[in-house]
Amino acid sequence: MAYKDEQLSEEKVFKDPVHRYVHVRDRVIWDLIAAPEFQRLRRIKQLGTTNLTFHGAEHSRFNHSLGVYEIVRRIINNFQDRPHWNKDERLLCLCAALLHDLGHGPFSHSFEKVFKLDHEYFTQQIVLGDTKINEILERVDKGFAQKVADVIAKTYEDKLVVSLISSQIDADRMDYLQRDAYFTGVSYGHFDMERILRVMRPIEDQVVIKSTGMHAVEDYIMSRYQMYWQVYFHPVTRSAEVILTKILHRAKHLYETEDFTFKLQPTHFVSFFKGEVNLADYLKLDEMVVHYYFQLWQEEDDEILRDLCERFMNRRLFKYVEFNPNLQMNEWMELYKLFQEAEIDPEYYLVVDSSSDLPYDFYRPGEEEERLPIHLLMPDGSLKELSRHSDIVESISGKKRTDHKLYFPKDRLNELKDQALRARIMEILYGQGEKVDVE
Amino acid sequence: MAYKDEQLSEEKVFKDPVHRYVHVRDRVIWDLIAAPEFQRLRRIKQLGTTNLTFHGAEHSRFNHSLGVYEIVRRIINNFQDRPHWNKDERLLCLCAALLHDLGHGPFSHSFEKVFKLDHEYFTQQIVLGDTKINEILERVDKGFAQKVADVIAKTYEDKLVVSLISSQIDADRMDYLQRDAYFTGVSYGHFDMERILRVMRPIEDQVVIKSTGMHAVEDYIMSRYQMYWQVYFHPVTRSAEVILTKILHRAKHLYETEDFTFKLQPTHFVSFFKGEVNLADYLKLDEMVVHYYFQLWQEEDDEILRDLCERFMNRRLFKYVEFNPNLQMNEWMELYKLFQEAEIDPEYYLVVDSSSDLPYDFYRPGEEEERLPIHLLMPDGSLKELSRHSDIVESISGKKRTDHKLYFPKDRLNELKDQALRARIMEILYGQGEKVDVE
Amino acid sequence: MAYKDEQLSEEKVFKDPVHRYVHVRDRVIWDLIAAPEFQRLRRIKQLGTTNLTFHGAEHSRFNHSLGVYEIVRRIINNFQDRPHWNKDERLLCLCAALLHDLGHGPFSHSFEKVFKLDHEYFTQQIVLGDTKINEILERVDKGFAQKVADVIAKTYEDKLVVSLISSQIDADRMDYLQRDAYFTGVSYGHFDMERILRVMRPIEDQVVIKSTGMHAVEDYIMSRYQMYWQVYFHPVTRSAEVILTKILHRAKHLYETEDFTFKLQPTHFVSFFKGEVNLADYLKLDEMVVHYYFQLWQEEDDEILRDLCERFMNRRLFKYVEFNPNLQMNEWMELYKLFQEAEIDPEYYLVVDSSSDLPYDFYRPGEEEERLPIHLLMPDGSLKELSRHSDIVESISGKKRTDHKLYFPKDRLNELKDQALRARIMEILYGQGEKVDVE
Amino acid sequence: MAYKDEQLSEEKVFKDPVHRYVHVRDRVIWDLIAAPEFQRLRRIKQLGTTNLTFHGAEHSRFNHSLGVYEIVRRIINNFQDRPHWNKDERLLCLCAALLHDLGHGPFSHSFEKVFKLDHEYFTQQIVLGDTKINEILERVDKGFAQKVADVIAKTYEDKLVVSLISSQIDADRMDYLQRDAYFTGVSYGHFDMERILRVMRPIEDQVVIKSTGMHAVEDYIMSRYQMYWQVYFHPVTRSAEVILTKILHRAKHLYETEDFTFKLQPTHFVSFFKGEVNLADYLKLDEMVVHYYFQLWQEEDDEILRDLCERFMNRRLFKYVEFNPNLQMNEWMELYKLFQEAEIDPEYYLVVDSSSDLPYDFYRPGEEEERLPIHLLMPDGSLKELSRHSDIVESISGKKRTDHKLYFPKDRLNELKDQALRARIMEILYGQGEKVDVE
Repeated sequence: MAYKDEQLSEEKVFKDPVHRYVHVRDRVIWDLIAAPEFQRLRRIKQLGTTNLTFHGAEHSRFNHSLGVYEIVRRIINNFQDRPHWNKDERLLCLCAALLHDLGHGPFSHSFEKVFKLDHEYFTQQIVLGDTKINEILERVDKGFAQKVADVIAKTYEDKLVVSLISSQIDADRMDYLQRDAYFTGVSYGHFDMERILRVMRPIEDQVVIKSTGMHAVEDYIMSRYQMYWQVYFHPVTRSAEVILTKILHRAKHLYETEDFTFKLQPTHFVSFFKGEVNLADYLKLDEMVVHYYFQLWQEEDDEILRDLCERFMNRRLFKYVEFNPNLQMNEWMELYKLFQEAEIDPEYYLVVDSSSDLPYDFYRPGEEEERLPIHLLMPDGSLKELSRHSDIVESISGKKRTDHKLYFPKDRLNELKDQALRARIMEILYGQGEKVDVE
Repeated sequence: MAYKDEQLSEEKVFKDPVHRYVHVRDRVIWDLIAAPEFQRLRRIKQLGTTNLTFHGAEHSRFNHSLGVYEIVRRIINNFQDRPHWNKDERLLCLCAALLHDLGHGPFSHSFEKVFKLDHEYFTQQIVLGDTKINEILERVDKGFAQKVADVIAKTYEDKLVVSLISSQIDADRMDYLQRDAYFTGVSYGHFDMERILRVMRPIEDQVVIKSTGMHAVEDYIMSRYQMYWQVYFHPVTRSAEVILTKILHRAKHLYETEDFTFKLQPTHFVSFFKGEVNLADYLKLDEMVVHYYFQLWQEEDDEILRDLCERFMNRRLFKYVEFNPNLQMNEWMELYKLFQEAEIDPEYYLVVDSSSDLPYDFYRPGEEEERLPIHLLMPDGSLKELSRHSDIVESISGKKRTDHKLYFPKDRLNELKDQALRARIMEILYGQGEKVDVE
Repeated sequence: MAYKDEQLSEEKVFKDPVHRYVHVRDRVIWDLIAAPEFQRLRRIKQLGTTNLTFHGAEHSRFNHSLGVYEIVRRIINNFQDRPHWNKDERLLCLCAALLHDLGHGPFSHSFEKVFKLDHEYFTQQIVLGDTKINEILERVDKGFAQKVADVIAKTYEDKLVVSLISSQIDADRMDYLQRDAYFTGVSYGHFDMERILRVMRPIEDQVVIKSTGMHAVEDYIMSRYQMYWQVYFHPVTRSAEVILTKILHRAKHLYETEDFTFKLQPTHFVSFFKGEVNLADYLKLDEMVVHYYFQLWQEEDDEILRDLCERFMNRRLFKYVEFNPNLQMNEWMELYKLFQEAEIDPEYYLVVDSSSDLPYDFYRPGEEEERLPIHLLMPDGSLKELSRHSDIVESISGKKRTDHKLYFPKDRLNELKDQALRARIMEILYGQGEKVDVE
Repeated sequence: MAYKDEQLSEEKVFKDPVHRYVHVRDRVIWDLIAAPEFQRLRRIKQLGTTNLTFHGAEHSRFNHSLGVYEIVRRIINNFQDRPHWNKDERLLCLCAALLHDLGHGPFSHSFEKVFKLDHEYFTQQIVLGDTKINEILERVDKGFAQKVADVIAKTYEDKLVVSLISSQIDADRMDYLQRDAYFTGVSYGHFDMERILRVMRPIEDQVVIKSTGMHAVEDYIMSRYQMYWQVYFHPVTRSAEVILTKILHRAKHLYETEDFTFKLQPTHFVSFFKGEVNLADYLKLDEMVVHYYFQLWQEEDDEILRDLCERFMNRRLFKYVEFNPNLQMNEWMELYKLFQEAEIDPEYYLVVDSSSDLPYDFYRPGEEEERLPIHLLMPDGSLKELSRHSDIVESISGKKRTDHKLYFPKDRLNELKDQALRARIMEILYGQGEKVDVE
């Protein structure tokens, strides 16, 4: 039997807290899961620093990747005998689902920002490069790895296949909303996925939703909205991200400083500092390794690096206040100077962070990031864009919400000896009245 | 206000997937949680290598420690106005609950076995030594740290307090059964804790259970039984433990071998290899650091170390068969020789592992490990040992069950060129018939 | 000890699937639950005919009443030491919570409409009249029954007490949303009640919500919205309600018809038909009795009564189409005539039903039904109306949504012999195209 | 297309709180559910009087019947391509699953005991008699109704089919354990059904369980054990059963008493009293009708009937004490006389009730009720009876446990004027010491 058709003698299952079981029958999938590049995802948390806010959120991307695969498997099962569905794309869909996040590194968000990296680029590299993953995919079929890479990159010609993995209601989102809700323990994130799977229908170039399932989709959109603001953009998590980012900046800066030498050479980081990251280096830098360095750096000679690492490892985070950089430029400049005066380097200790989200978007061709809208399949066979049919979705559709916060080490301010200086800083930060921190 | 009585201005809560919320009002508890020695528990998994079997089980001991604290807090709330309950012991109970696992290192079980360590010893060291934890406890009261240490060591004079933390139905067990069930996703591990908490009653020297709650306790005992055999002793998890143990043995051996030099000096491990571990060394070795070394060692010159590390990191585990070392000595000896012949070092690649559990025990004074039985409080005020009242518990009471397995790298055997040798090994391992591995 | 302060020797609990346990310690509450007028609520379903759509929804108002009591009990527990909270109102709140739905009869909605009744009037009657409930309440204190009646009627002077039982985020709504979701099995209806209870704060005349809990409230409002449209206004449920209403109309009509005699005198209904319902009659007519009559009426001589009862008992419901009576008057009139022509009495077999809901409302003084808005308590101590702070709530606030449907017995139409007549009716109902019923 | 192969144009689903969704695609199943004899099951509670103990347990047999159907549907889906499985039996299995409880009447247990009825007999009657159900089944195939009846009666020749519906681990038990746990809210009743379904294998004459699934089956057996003793045999529920039984006895007695006339002729009961119940009478007597009569009888002239009905309707139940009739014959006789002396008729007010259960049984041919044991399918293909492989099951296997209780109206005793008489009765019932009732 051809490798691509090979089946395990008995179905294997993974016990999964979210989907109960993840089922594997294809030999190819089984082999991909066993590949080192995929096993590496066990060492990268799904939610980066979120576990410092929600202590349950310690789950890895390995976990989530299996979940996305399982959802796609179930969708395809339902599609089996539907018109428009091309059965030959089955294995391609499963592989793309399983591997879509393969290129994520540790704390992706911060690393990508500081070192100008792109996890999607590395996913492509892993799928197409000299890896076990690539070897397995090429055994399926000459050129199969490229197809998988194309689906993940959304450039694959069969847009129906692409939309299973990447759209405003895809397997990726459906898994992470439920999974992140489960592990954090929040009560948002519940929606009736089983119903959504039942009302999904393949048409030529996308997956659409039978209109009778509209309310389940509304519920999903609301879950997404709540998860973003309650979990993903939680200000305490962002505080940890801010510190993490500043550690990376500082370490890079020190590396580039002639008269500074690390006690232990930061081997794993060198190519990142130099901006010359190759695949092998990238794969080695998982979160375990990052933590190892941060632990070491707690004993480095540089005070800022030491302090920031100690904060990150022991969760001594920055406090924050609402702060709109667009409206409060003057205050910002004054604070900057006052921090300098207080000998608290504002480059590292006075940080504005902004989060914004677009909960659902209708189609706006030509815009920066085109997002495919969700279409309802009406009883008469026509398609209708979701926000034109749902009041709730209409009300949040296309509305970007942004939240700005200013982060700083309140403990350092409290220790300031110059009382007048301290008072002035506090006044700008907290105003005259309320001085209680939200925690 | 005295530090020990200090309350936070508003109650703080941690969102917890198992108990919904963990509530903190005492300043002391808040400070203990923020201490670096406690934050370190985030970097140590609650279930060691279990996540290689149940991928959801990536939760840390930090997680569990908060849970035990919360359960004790709820029990004490219920005890508040009961006779026999000494309100002055409240803070002591909460601290002991929170800190009881503080001395755990990475993969405790294997490390303790290989390096002859004892996590309880280190818990005592952290509570009594030069640590932030000790500083906080001593601020409560001179000698308070010693009291906390005594409760954890079960030597504290008020046995009622001890039994909240350590008995056959204590807060520790109640938390981990539910928590490990939640994160693995198995359906065992459910019991009606709320009911058990409601029927707990303090008497002079122990916590007893109102007899009307007996069935909830039966359910708890059965959960425990199932969790041990379905999760904690799962043979795949033990396979990973076997490999881990062998890595540590090999690394120690190499360190002690004169003509071997590690490419990178294994600084963090040196005191472990030498058997001279002090507290500072111990605290630095979390699971992040261990993974870092294992990754490095994948590139060491020693083939065995390299192979074992690569297996551990990429989950290429050993297979296993049922094997009773007491009855199958001859086979064992033959296998040992055959492995040598095949040039697969049996010291590292042919390992018997045994697990055994005593699901519930009545009191047997003078025995090696005395286990306090669970007592029911009858309607007439008398006490009755659980197994005398419950048929189910009686049936499993005092019965030790042991499971032996033999672990080996089947892939290596499959690659053997000497077909006769291979066949002979396989015959001993699998017999003539069935050759399917359970996975 | 005064009756009002009497405590049970041990706390009693009711196992509750929604709140885990309902706790009772007050003798008064225990006695009220045991009163015949309260036990009667076991014979009245919480959701009327909904179980014909969602078969799990067979739970009674007894169930829900205990739940509301339990929520109020928990809220008050949290309020215990808060400013503005008057501890003397505790028992009053508990009694009002427990008894607030006492006056509900069978299938309230339909009965009230057809017989011009009002369950709130009967609640007052039961609390103040010659009942066991009244006897218990008067034993608490002379005039206590009147106080309870006032709280339920929202006329009680302490508006804080009233708002616990009746507001846009009261114990009543919080219980039924969760309970109805649990029993129907739908995935809507989940929100973090524990968090909402924790952020509720009493002020002078109302309960407000700490602004940090806003998202939990948003989630609650969305749950409410989804439950209304997915469960409470489900068109299949409404079809059953339509038939039920028509049965009552027909029976009344026949009773008033001189030359018709029921085979069995409808004793329990007589005072309803006559419009002279007294309390004793009202209490006797539970859903068991109604079903008994409907069963009998399946064998009555009147064909319409017989058919409608047979439909109701055996769930042979009417089908429906979207139909806006305001816009489709002409079609309506034509259909009316065509039904007459077809000898299907349109008075009973061609029914427009409209449902509408206002998911959340800000305060509009002087309007027909004033609804108290939800206020957030801001960090600076000020109050802010919810919809001014929450985008989502703002988007659905004050917007009434109405849904119109036309119900009819499609089976009868299918049996019509006059094919032209049948075709014409179908054309008006379904248009030219799509003829599939949504079920 | 033949009726038996007819499929609905779209799959229909019922939202089910236990199995999420019940799926129907076969026209035959859809029609059976719509039949009046099946709809009647909505008016019969699954757990009789249990809702007087666990207020959530108000679910009907309709509910459960759909659940059993759904489980069998899923099992068959898994069996589809297995050896030994005969695809032609699919529809037969589904029909038998759906209809297996069709003959249940109101409060089956008590009615069967008092009137010497047998619900299995009536199931046969409904399936084979002049009913809509029979009409549908006969449309499938001449003789199909008889086949369905045979499967339910366990006389069908293909024992594999029978064992799906009736064995020690059948769809019936799996549904009711989970469903009753869900609606009562107890934490027992959870087991991993999905896993059990996955390890079920058809062999020639039975369904067996792959040995790797043994622990899931252990868990199921323990659930069953706990549900029996915690829920099904709960003494408060039995108290209500005792009263119900006595009402039926009394009413029958009065009917047979020449000089007593009911105010309203108990039409629905007459054939029951006479022992001449035919199918039509049987189908009319649902729990709604029974409640109607009990309400009426609260106003009958006979004091005992009136009192018992009033107790049942208002949940004024009997209290109970442990009482072993085999060992306490003398006390029993004395109590009997003392009750007579006190003018509390012991025939109705002094009742011993015994419950007993055999949690699991191995095969004992020739015994009164042969119960097919559960067989494990070992890796080598052999079968092993469960209790020989599982310690826990072995420990409870074949052990019948019996619980005896004596029920009486304590309120009546408390009102006795003759203090000496009262004291003597109390002494026998409660002994000298403890006088607290368990509630």
